[in-house]
Amino acid sequence: MGKRVITISREFGSGGRTIGKKTAKRLGIPYYDKELIRKIAEETGFCQEFVARQGEEASSSNWFFYSLSQGQAMGPNGMSMSDYLWSVQYKIIRELAEKEPCVIVGRCGDYVLEDRDDCLHVFVHAPLEFKKERILRLYGERKEKPEKRLEEKDKKRKLYYQHYTGRDWGMAKNYHLCLDSSLIGIDNCVDIIERLAKGL
Amino acid sequence: MGKRVITISREFGSGGRTIGKKTAKRLGIPYYDKELIRKIAEETGFCQEFVARQGEEASSSNWFFYSLSQGQAMGPNGMSMSDYLWSVQYKIIRELAEKEPCVIVGRCGDYVLEDRDDCLHVFVHAPLEFKKERILRLYGERKEKPEKRLEEKDKKRKLYYQHYTGRDWGMAKNYHLCLDSSLIGIDNCVDIIERLAKGL
Repeated sequence: MGKRVITISREFGSGGRTIGKKTAKRLGIPYYDKELIRKIAEETGFCQEFVARQGEEASSSNWFFYSLSQGQAMGPNGMSMSDYLWSVQYKIIRELAEKEPCVIVGRCGDYVLEDRDDCLHVFVHAPLEFKKERILRLYGERKEKPEKRLEEKDKKRKLYYQHYTGRDWGMAKNYHLCLDSSLIGIDNCVDIIERLAKGL
Repeated sequence: MGKRVITISREFGSGGRTIGKKTAKRLGIPYYDKELIRKIAEETGFCQEFVARQGEEASSSNWFFYSLSQGQAMGPNGMSMSDYLWSVQYKIIRELAEKEPCVIVGRCGDYVLEDRDDCLHVFVHAPLEFKKERILRLYGERKEKPEKRLEEKDKKRKLYYQHYTGRDWGMAKNYHLCLDSSLIGIDNCVDIIERLAKGL
């Protein structure tokens, strides 16, 4: 049986986003990343930059003051901003999966859609050296060392995932398929996902 | 680049052993399970039944009294029996990987061979219902409920793995490929592993 919806979770720098994009192109279905952020921003009233950063990462900054600067201290019904963002994000991901076949990258998609049997949940990871080389090539040098950038980004994703799902991030059992993109290669990863999505 | 050696770690009842056997047959290379146990038993002097059970599972029974009943309280050089078994097992797995292409199931193969770049490390898992149905079909009813049997077996494997590798069992990053055998299907799992082993 093929799968209509593919969720891709990924370590920062592993190429999961690229794999998601390529898979969507091969299957001729929408790839939700920026468009998803736009929808969430529209519904919550938060700016896209905020949604992009806070919608799948625990923040070490002070959310209260950030929220004041955004002109909104709390979400509706007394929810914290973070919980409000999560609830809207959750609803929109559910609606997207209901509406049409698509690829959804990040945002705990595996958890949000775990009860649907028409989804394929994928996790992409890679060793440090591969990710270091990749983020330097794609995003350039920064003040912070690449090791630090990788560690911080994934730490935030891990905390966010743990907080909202109660599960450990990167455990094989949460996904149907986990791939080491450095060994398997980006295009081979796309091949494997495509075949499974088509039920081959 | 293809891979000479394939290690398969698996949840009890997930079909990992069957996947290992089938993969070895397809690739025309040896499959090490009973033969590995025989080699370890021969070198340690322990009986095969003991090696089969204790070589990848932390025991809840009292090893000291068990060891007395086996006529051997400790391994050589003052090592505990468990550490002695681990050290021999480690050495034999390294020798096998050096000697010839093969499939090795269980026994922390992913960790023992992690420094070799000619190995493909695979983890096979599945949801509870699939594993329950599978162990009842393959091993029949027992006094203990299937849920209990599954839980206890994997708990022991997890503890053993954690103790000897210092890593969490079932974390995607320890493997190149993790597969949910219930969704992907045993034969599709074999296909994917075969293609990666051949470097396709």
